[in-house]
Amino acid sequence: MSVEDRLAALETRLRTAEDQLEIIRLLSSYGPMVDSGSGKEAADLWIEGGGYNFSGGLSGGMTMRAPQELIGMYETEGHMGLVSTGVSHLTATPQITINGDEAKAVGYSFVVLREGERWFLWRAAINHWTLVRTPKGWKIKERFNRALNGSEDSLETMRKALP
Amino acid sequence: MSVEDRLAALETRLRTAEDQLEIIRLLSSYGPMVDSGSGKEAADLWIEGGGYNFSGGLSGGMTMRAPQELIGMYETEGHMGLVSTGVSHLTATPQITINGDEAKAVGYSFVVLREGERWFLWRAAINHWTLVRTPKGWKIKERFNRALNGSEDSLETMRKALP
Amino acid sequence: MSVEDRLAALETRLRTAEDQLEIIRLLSSYGPMVDSGSGKEAADLWIEGGGYNFSGGLSGGMTMRAPQELIGMYETEGHMGLVSTGVSHLTATPQITINGDEAKAVGYSFVVLREGERWFLWRAAINHWTLVRTPKGWKIKERFNRALNGSEDSLETMRKALP
Repeated sequence: MSVEDRLAALETRLRTAEDQLEIIRLLSSYGPMVDSGSGKEAADLWIEGGGYNFSGGLSGGMTMRAPQELIGMYETEGHMGLVSTGVSHLTATPQITINGDEAKAVGYSFVVLREGERWFLWRAAINHWTLVRTPKGWKIKERFNRALNGSEDSLETMRKALP
Repeated sequence: MSVEDRLAALETRLRTAEDQLEIIRLLSSYGPMVDSGSGKEAADLWIEGGGYNFSGGLSGGMTMRAPQELIGMYETEGHMGLVSTGVSHLTATPQITINGDEAKAVGYSFVVLREGERWFLWRAAINHWTLVRTPKGWKIKERFNRALNGSEDSLETMRKALP
Repeated sequence: MSVEDRLAALETRLRTAEDQLEIIRLLSSYGPMVDSGSGKEAADLWIEGGGYNFSGGLSGGMTMRAPQELIGMYETEGHMGLVSTGVSHLTATPQITINGDEAKAVGYSFVVLREGERWFLWRAAINHWTLVRTPKGWKIKERFNRALNGSEDSLETMRKALP
């Protein structure tokens, strides 16, 4: 291979590695934001118009849109009650697939909530994120989240990790 | 350093970074596969003849071999009961060490299981994975897993993370 | 861009990616070390004189200094009781920001403890790490840890993840 070809190959491969690290960083930023009541910053992890669809609770399986509906949700008494109790919205490192300027990620998330001197798993869910590269870096386009209860849509979401 | 030397150094270093990301991706793929009853795809994360040795349960400390014994395990009533209840086989990001075409990883895994409106930690374990580079990417050669109960073999497995 | 410029840009970008992976590896090494009673090796993840400040328990919000005070803590009856019961000090992959030879990381940690046939969350906390590049690789300079209980300092620690 010529020097030019080797440089071009390195640049492309490195960008894919950086993309994965940036997406891991993005998803790891979500918890500390929502758990400290920083709803505006959390909603800004999505593109404008991006969606968050989760079963149960405030969404009930409807898609909420960034930024305004998400900010509204993070400002509710319900959410702020979690914040003052002590909570972690934990995103486990997911399976990430980069495809040019789009990416998908499939993985688990948990809501860990304090109860007296202990913490417990208030929610465990599977997620499918669609992400897009923007001038401001990677952002979430859609997040689809289903609680782990054996439902067909939770299992279908997990199967998005199949090759 | 000459251009040639710098290119070669970059290529080697980048491959090591990519290897780590690929192994993180491989281990993050396991949960959504087994938790959706996709035992065949999960078993394919191992090389043919690769092993999974875990304490308790179906293995009882014996090594089960991929693919057939693993597929068989994931098809049992016991495992499919977890799937229909709602479960996450969570692999925490481990300590990964690349050594050419082999790698080892040491880290925790958890089985999070639904019980009514909550989830609980049905199992917590330490793992030592041996991985190999194959023409189809990184695969698991051996996974050794011990529940966290203070046993000497669980502590020995953790100590594989020591320098 | 000239070949020289492209090589230099690749070298800089790759080092930043490697830094993130090395820090993930460092933080993933902590648990298996302290949970197997390998306090000396765990304390060596800090620079000499580096600090660990956590609320409650043995520190009570004071900063303990590496290596001696940390080794002392990991050798206490209290800590060794966790080891013999079966415990995981789990560090979730944090938000990492590299800034030359310094880095910060913000993220969750959990202490998972056995109780009979189950495990439970004995502690859930938010962390802010300051890390430094040393001739022996990245090390922890300061770790600040607060239990998730809605306290102002726990929320302030989370907010270190804001842009």
